[in-house]
Amino acid sequence: MKLVQSTILRILFANTFIILSTLKWFFLAIIAGVLVGGVSGVFLKTLDYGISQASMIPLYYLAIPAAFMVSLYLVRRFAPDARGHGTEKVIESLHKKDGEIDTRVIPVKLFATLITLIAGGSAGKEGPCAQIGAGVASTAARIFRMGPINRKRFVLCGISAGFSAVFGTPIAGAIFAGEVIYVGKFSYRELMPALIASYFSFFVTKNMGVTHLIYQIDFDITNEIALVFNMLFLGIIIGIVAIFFIYVLYGIERTIEKIPLGGYTKAFWGGLFLVLVVFFTGSLDYVGLGTHVIDHALAGNAVAPESSLLKMITTSITLGSGGSGGILTPIFFIGATAGNIWAQLVGGNLALYSAVGMCAFLAATTNTPLAAILIAIELFGVDVGSYGSIACIVSYLIVGHMSVYPSQVLSENKT
Amino acid sequence: MKLVQSTILRILFANTFIILSTLKWFFLAIIAGVLVGGVSGVFLKTLDYGISQASMIPLYYLAIPAAFMVSLYLVRRFAPDARGHGTEKVIESLHKKDGEIDTRVIPVKLFATLITLIAGGSAGKEGPCAQIGAGVASTAARIFRMGPINRKRFVLCGISAGFSAVFGTPIAGAIFAGEVIYVGKFSYRELMPALIASYFSFFVTKNMGVTHLIYQIDFDITNEIALVFNMLFLGIIIGIVAIFFIYVLYGIERTIEKIPLGGYTKAFWGGLFLVLVVFFTGSLDYVGLGTHVIDHALAGNAVAPESSLLKMITTSITLGSGGSGGILTPIFFIGATAGNIWAQLVGGNLALYSAVGMCAFLAATTNTPLAAILIAIELFGVDVGSYGSIACIVSYLIVGHMSVYPSQVLSENKT
Repeated sequence: MKLVQSTILRILFANTFIILSTLKWFFLAIIAGVLVGGVSGVFLKTLDYGISQASMIPLYYLAIPAAFMVSLYLVRRFAPDARGHGTEKVIESLHKKDGEIDTRVIPVKLFATLITLIAGGSAGKEGPCAQIGAGVASTAARIFRMGPINRKRFVLCGISAGFSAVFGTPIAGAIFAGEVIYVGKFSYRELMPALIASYFSFFVTKNMGVTHLIYQIDFDITNEIALVFNMLFLGIIIGIVAIFFIYVLYGIERTIEKIPLGGYTKAFWGGLFLVLVVFFTGSLDYVGLGTHVIDHALAGNAVAPESSLLKMITTSITLGSGGSGGILTPIFFIGATAGNIWAQLVGGNLALYSAVGMCAFLAATTNTPLAAILIAIELFGVDVGSYGSIACIVSYLIVGHMSVYPSQVLSENKT
Repeated sequence: MKLVQSTILRILFANTFIILSTLKWFFLAIIAGVLVGGVSGVFLKTLDYGISQASMIPLYYLAIPAAFMVSLYLVRRFAPDARGHGTEKVIESLHKKDGEIDTRVIPVKLFATLITLIAGGSAGKEGPCAQIGAGVASTAARIFRMGPINRKRFVLCGISAGFSAVFGTPIAGAIFAGEVIYVGKFSYRELMPALIASYFSFFVTKNMGVTHLIYQIDFDITNEIALVFNMLFLGIIIGIVAIFFIYVLYGIERTIEKIPLGGYTKAFWGGLFLVLVVFFTGSLDYVGLGTHVIDHALAGNAVAPESSLLKMITTSITLGSGGSGGILTPIFFIGATAGNIWAQLVGGNLALYSAVGMCAFLAATTNTPLAAILIAIELFGVDVGSYGSIACIVSYLIVGHMSVYPSQVLSENKT
């Protein structure tokens, strides 16, 4: 017994440094999580309130062209770094500026995204949360006088905390942050701080009254082998849709760039295009966040066959012409509807295919298969996550080295 | 619509290679999974039968010394590569021989482990399944004339399939295989084949009647913040216990090596030591697989304060003196009892702490935090996995760069 005690004391002594550094990052991550959760909570609550108020105004979506112009003005005038969809900008700053992010990005991104989304721009709320989170973290890192390595780690906590603030999935948030910076490499070093930041951001937003949804997907596992093959084919289809989306996204962005008109004029026409989509489809499904369509698909209802394509176009035009916002909510929309449409074609379970389609599309477009598996588990339960994992990994392979985040650095070839 | 169709056709055409290579590996992985699942199933069924028969013989454990000697003889005479605990040998062969494994390892490891475990040696059944699985995969790779890169990937499918054959956790199996070869690096390239092999091995063993347990752990989430901190402390404790175990394991192994006696004599004395443990403790808890103790701890019962330490010693002596077997089941035993004992000291929930302790101890001793999180989710559900993830990552950090698998290659420092 004496020997055991003295050995344990020796271990404690020899590993003091590791234990202290773990504790240090544990507490720094709590700070990051609470800060980012707080700011994200304010953003999300305001967004919810704004959307519910706007929806009561008839023809509110006529404001989209003006909203894009204002959003573009805010970004150009006060913080050019706040341009683009959020997560992409954070990845770029991590690779090119050691995680330095201008503090002005925080309010500018917050207001520009609120204006874009409340009016009816088609974009997401996760990217801005990640970007605002990273901005908060980077600012705090400056105040604490952190060096570049610590700052980068702290900023990664911001991505993770932003993700889990929006989706309420702490593990997926941490793993997303560990996966999204590189293609084919997982950042183990940042896993613990990212996870703790993720948890505290989740707690803070939950206590602020932000609601995170958990879905119940019921499906039959009578024929496991058939299910595995169905997931393979769903993964291939989703992978192809992902490549198509990346083409559409950057094709439209480049086309808009080449048009010889001023930025505000393009923002106006871009916004007008979305108004026309509402007018011609007679529905509000393809503007705004579109979460009601995701819910509809996940509840096992059939969606319109054109829904994925239309959402790709409205999202690409929103982000390409001046609107501000993220890309993950549109990715969830396109993935869920694509899975749903495929299920209609092959006679699959609509709810299951929508849920798996959504996660596999995330895996493919952002190169984050592990985060996609975890989000499937955290949102839909172990069974969906378990079989869905096959589709997530297959679609991740099919998409090759393309990405909606061009700043992702390829660390290792996929095959 | 024409444009959409032609773009999709172009994508299909341009990505034919990726799609075909994905399909090729999908089917190769099915072959690996079915082969490994079949052999593992035979091994596991025979083991169960043997253990149930042996338990009916009074004083059956008196055969341990003879069993160690026979086991040592089999390995020395027919396949020296079958020495040691299974997974470690596979990792070594992947790093040093491009995954070449002698076919004779399969039957030798199978029989030597059956003899060791049925008599009452303290070791695990996962390692041999992984080693047998890797041997089957390597043999199949020779028959298919695969090159070194493909063979290594195929052998990794063997590890994954062996893991999920034993524990019935397909995702954790695949992620374990992707994590265990290096420290601080995840092998994304092998994820899809490993996952598919894992599933098919799971299906095959399930259909052969191998039972995989799923536990129900009930715990209160009234104070989330307190729970996070409790998981932090549990992670630190488990990390320290892990370092201690690695010292004990290799300390006893080296001590036995230095004793100037013949191998069979040492095997005899090693076996006799285990018999004496049974005699002095008056219990069969520290010999054999010990799954009943794991079940007892996970059901929320208090275990004896000396149980983790005694199991460390019996396992180290079994593996060090000539017994054949794996190390994961002992790791689960030690982790679950250590968590349980800690819960008794601090007044924690015994079932929860045992479950999390088991997974966190796996994360620390084998450097596989993601696999540990997934095994927690697959065995105990999303809630345990979610909070348990904190302990898993913390213990993984605390252990530093030590490992029960000395062949693991350090790819990136942890901090």
